Amino acid sequence: MNFKIDNLQYCKWDRSIFEINREANLDAVHVTVVYHEDFEEFKLKLLDWEKNFKENSDLIFLGKSFKDIEKAKNEGKTAVFFGFQNCSPIEDDINLIEKIYDYGCRFMQLTYNNQSLLASGCYEKNDSGVTNFGREAIKEMNRLGIVIDMSHSGEKSTFDAIDLSQKPIAITHANPSFWHQNKRSKSEDLLKTLSKSGGMLGLSIYPHHLKDGTHCTLDSFCEMIARLADIMGIKNIGIGSDLCLNQPDNVVEWMRNGTWTKTKNLGEGSKNNQGFPEQPTWFKDARGFKNIEIGLQKIGFNDSDICAILGNNWFNFYKGI
Amino acid sequence: MNFKIDNLQYCKWDRSIFEINREANLDAVHVTVVYHEDFEEFKLKLLDWEKNFKENSDLIFLGKSFKDIEKAKNEGKTAVFFGFQNCSPIEDDINLIEKIYDYGCRFMQLTYNNQSLLASGCYEKNDSGVTNFGREAIKEMNRLGIVIDMSHSGEKSTFDAIDLSQKPIAITHANPSFWHQNKRSKSEDLLKTLSKSGGMLGLSIYPHHLKDGTHCTLDSFCEMIARLADIMGIKNIGIGSDLCLNQPDNVVEWMRNGTWTKTKNLGEGSKNNQGFPEQPTWFKDARGFKNIEIGLQKIGFNDSDICAILGNNWFNFYKGI
Repeated sequence: MNFKIDNLQYCKWDRSIFEINREANLDAVHVTVVYHEDFEEFKLKLLDWEKNFKENSDLIFLGKSFKDIEKAKNEGKTAVFFGFQNCSPIEDDINLIEKIYDYGCRFMQLTYNNQSLLASGCYEKNDSGVTNFGREAIKEMNRLGIVIDMSHSGEKSTFDAIDLSQKPIAITHANPSFWHQNKRSKSEDLLKTLSKSGGMLGLSIYPHHLKDGTHCTLDSFCEMIARLADIMGIKNIGIGSDLCLNQPDNVVEWMRNGTWTKTKNLGEGSKNNQGFPEQPTWFKDARGFKNIEIGLQKIGFNDSDICAILGNNWFNFYKGI
Repeated sequence: MNFKIDNLQYCKWDRSIFEINREANLDAVHVTVVYHEDFEEFKLKLLDWEKNFKENSDLIFLGKSFKDIEKAKNEGKTAVFFGFQNCSPIEDDINLIEKIYDYGCRFMQLTYNNQSLLASGCYEKNDSGVTNFGREAIKEMNRLGIVIDMSHSGEKSTFDAIDLSQKPIAITHANPSFWHQNKRSKSEDLLKTLSKSGGMLGLSIYPHHLKDGTHCTLDSFCEMIARLADIMGIKNIGIGSDLCLNQPDNVVEWMRNGTWTKTKNLGEGSKNNQGFPEQPTWFKDARGFKNIEIGLQKIGFNDSDICAILGNNWFNFYKGI
């Protein structure tokens, strides 16, 4: 059985997007539920998701384990897995990790760009690695089955997390720095270590993570995957598109600024490009999976490898959560 | 006019302690209001203080500026200044800094032993210095007049804070490492830089910070001050006794463990000495200021220097907040 999985989307959800994801044959999608929200604010976000599940039960349901991906496949639906892009919902309390698990959380970034209580973000000047609290949190996440996601973390913190975690970790949405230099991109050394430990890299199609941004070509993206496969092997590569469909620009401001600064921080943006950037033509939404499939065929990947990259690798990873 | 100031106490407050502080002629005391409490929990602690002020208005009142120290002196009372040993009451929100100021907070540690969102604590393996959020918080604390207290911070973070802050910072309760090696003790380099920048060191009389612990002699303590004065000069030395009178041992557990670990962390304690350690005979409570005065005379300090160390230096520092 082959699966299609997009392991990171953060859209302004409505039925039309769930329909698009079905058209794209996505069996599972990992969705960002919160950025900087605390525990109570996270619970408010859950109310929106309860409504989404109720009103679109013919298209989606809450995924809790790999079995739900098989179930989704069988029922022609998309299993939705909850994740957090920051650890703010656990606040400073290790006991909240079990609570968020009970509410469905299966992925949590230890940091989002800045320092958190658990680790350093990729936008900090210095990265001191996983903290005392971070070590305890990793144990607890391992115990429960919440994936440690280091997409927005600093390099030392990510090496530490790979080393400390007893289960493989994930970088759900980022690209290799050999292709596009960016604070969010990952070094070859790191990707090799990730791969050796059984961890996954989800390739991002968010324009700020792409060579040439919005104008990135499908060929360039697929050439990057070919080179990456030489470095990491095929089995640890997937897609985490980082699609932010229909989000208003004040959402990207929230992502970047949270409540930590009184001065506007532009993050990956710039003065003349502050909002959400435009998607490349070959990946306007998840239906672009088809284009990636074609691109990977063109560059010489066989069917089995293409299926691995477009979902089977993530499925196998979910089995180990 | 000479002042007596103890710039750190964290007692289980009741009238008897306020009376002792008056017997000791303390014109001001900086009290720890919270360790790891969040904003709402901090406000609950304020209710206790409202009660303390109401029931003991003949002995204490809330201090907000150096003028309240003069007022306390004139009225024969002790001005109580609020401080936090962790930045947890501001959570992840820079806007809460103004709120805590409005509620009376005048000192805030950027960290308590562990990594915080603002800086690294002295119990972390690595110290990455003041964070992105930390830099913003320091600006805001400077603007409002909340002292940056680095007593429990790592060395790099403390150097950063001295460098970044436009006002002198404080280490309200710690001792020099040349006298007693401890994760909480401060190096000569750091103390020199602190002093040059106009910052204050409050000497601690918490047994874990003393050479020979509970059995530390007054002579040894005063010899340390004499050597310290050679290193830092007289003007930047004060007392921050770290007195924890009548606190039950579960409080020291809260200080050390907060909610960040499921495994009991003993901090400065040890398996056979887990609770609050016994005070040395010459400083059972603030009346020990008299003993320190005698000890400093014995070692050769003149009256003016003794008054400086026992309170006038802190008073001058408060003028600059």
